[in-house]
Amino acid sequence: MDEKNRADELIFGRNAVLAFLQAEPVSRRGVRGGRVNKLFVMPTAHSDKRLDLIKQLAKQRNIPIFDCEKRRLEQMVGAEQAHQGVAAQLSPVDYWEFEDFLKLLEKDRERWTAEGNAPESFMNNYVVGILDGIEDPHNLGAIVRVAECAGVKALFLPERRSASITSVVAKTSAGALATLPVVRIGNLVRALERLKESGFWIAGLDADARQSCFEADLNIPLAIVIGSEGKGMSRLVKEHCDLLLKIPMFGQTESLNASVAAAIVFYERVRQATSKATEKQALH
Amino acid sequence: MDEKNRADELIFGRNAVLAFLQAEPVSRRGVRGGRVNKLFVMPTAHSDKRLDLIKQLAKQRNIPIFDCEKRRLEQMVGAEQAHQGVAAQLSPVDYWEFEDFLKLLEKDRERWTAEGNAPESFMNNYVVGILDGIEDPHNLGAIVRVAECAGVKALFLPERRSASITSVVAKTSAGALATLPVVRIGNLVRALERLKESGFWIAGLDADARQSCFEADLNIPLAIVIGSEGKGMSRLVKEHCDLLLKIPMFGQTESLNASVAAAIVFYERVRQATSKATEKQALH
Repeated sequence: MDEKNRADELIFGRNAVLAFLQAEPVSRRGVRGGRVNKLFVMPTAHSDKRLDLIKQLAKQRNIPIFDCEKRRLEQMVGAEQAHQGVAAQLSPVDYWEFEDFLKLLEKDRERWTAEGNAPESFMNNYVVGILDGIEDPHNLGAIVRVAECAGVKALFLPERRSASITSVVAKTSAGALATLPVVRIGNLVRALERLKESGFWIAGLDADARQSCFEADLNIPLAIVIGSEGKGMSRLVKEHCDLLLKIPMFGQTESLNASVAAAIVFYERVRQATSKATEKQALH
Repeated sequence: MDEKNRADELIFGRNAVLAFLQAEPVSRRGVRGGRVNKLFVMPTAHSDKRLDLIKQLAKQRNIPIFDCEKRRLEQMVGAEQAHQGVAAQLSPVDYWEFEDFLKLLEKDRERWTAEGNAPESFMNNYVVGILDGIEDPHNLGAIVRVAECAGVKALFLPERRSASITSVVAKTSAGALATLPVVRIGNLVRALERLKESGFWIAGLDADARQSCFEADLNIPLAIVIGSEGKGMSRLVKEHCDLLLKIPMFGQTESLNASVAAAIVFYERVRQATSKATEKQALH
């Protein structure tokens, strides 16, 4: 059993999987994304209404579906179990959906103005992170941890080419996962467009960028894209960025670890926001 | 065999261990610290001149000596091996000694002035890191990596309460270990005093500090102490700091990962140095 599909995070059987997919949100936040990370379906499983509904709900919620041979499925859940050709890996926390995030944004906006702050400065203190290709669960956990410490409001996680939220991520995040919303998105580019529509500027970390993250003005409504170390952001995502930022490098090493790169940029924004705040405005 | 004492990093037998302790430096840098991380000695091993010399050299070079029962030693090196009551764990790179670092400092100073820079500004661009209680090899490797990227000149590693340099550290550092000098020190407080004598200010990361790392002037000859996450620096080390710096925290999570905290401060120094540099002086 590899780290990705631990037995204690797996459920199986059509009714059980369906129940988790249909479950009313139980978290106090009332978010709608549910807890299913991914589905494993045996290609030879016989079709019925429940299986059709399982697949349909998974698509609606951006849950990836993997073909899984009988032998592999039995290795995962135990050969003696009645899996009925389907299993699901569960996250320890509920995923958020994009609409949940929009509601949070509005709630935060209302509180901001109710506290007597200038409405026009609300978004200048709003920052989210977008992860593009972070496949290592330790890296994902470390990013969740530093994001929460740096006042990042939410992380966006694509369904593909990304680690899911597992117990390893939860442990590495040192509890931050219980506080920081993680929004699961299907199409990353579509999510960037929706964030732009909501007033965010998209800033991508890129080793080839001309501007250093220390030179740019980060006191804007900011969605920061963190790519995988080495490979960086995907080309299409890079093309959708409003600004590209590099972290200056002084040694022989080619790249920084993704969570370290995230930390430097998240905290550079904190630095700029707090030095501005002492001048003229409160922070969230 | 645990990760700490991997068979491929162990040598054993009195002549072999002695040879590694007496070896002339083979690295191109000509540093004197040698490659031995730690010694394992069977308490019941019979004394002879070689064993006495082994212990004496280990003390001189700040190499920790661990008592190791026969059964444990045989588990480590293999029961059929002629270990003669002694084994040593090797680092993939040579450690530096404090004197090697002082030579490096002088060499860098000469080059700085030879390049036409103002001699009095040399030390303002000089920064080193001191690790107090970093016991996890992945954390150590991550700190080595970001230190090298941020232009940190050397890392100081105490012999006690600290991870040694192993293949895990080398791998996590992504090659940075081949470039960045690691100085092994016996007494941490004594090392701080020697650094002060050489002109450095000691800055410790401390969650309870009044000053944020973003408010302090870091354009000084700087030795930055990174403590273990959670516990922080030891009390005695904290008392020897010239300034204490905190990283502002905005979430529910209590502390940052040590390598992430190091990254934020190392790069805040880069930011301050480069913004000063564009005004009036070159960087190293």
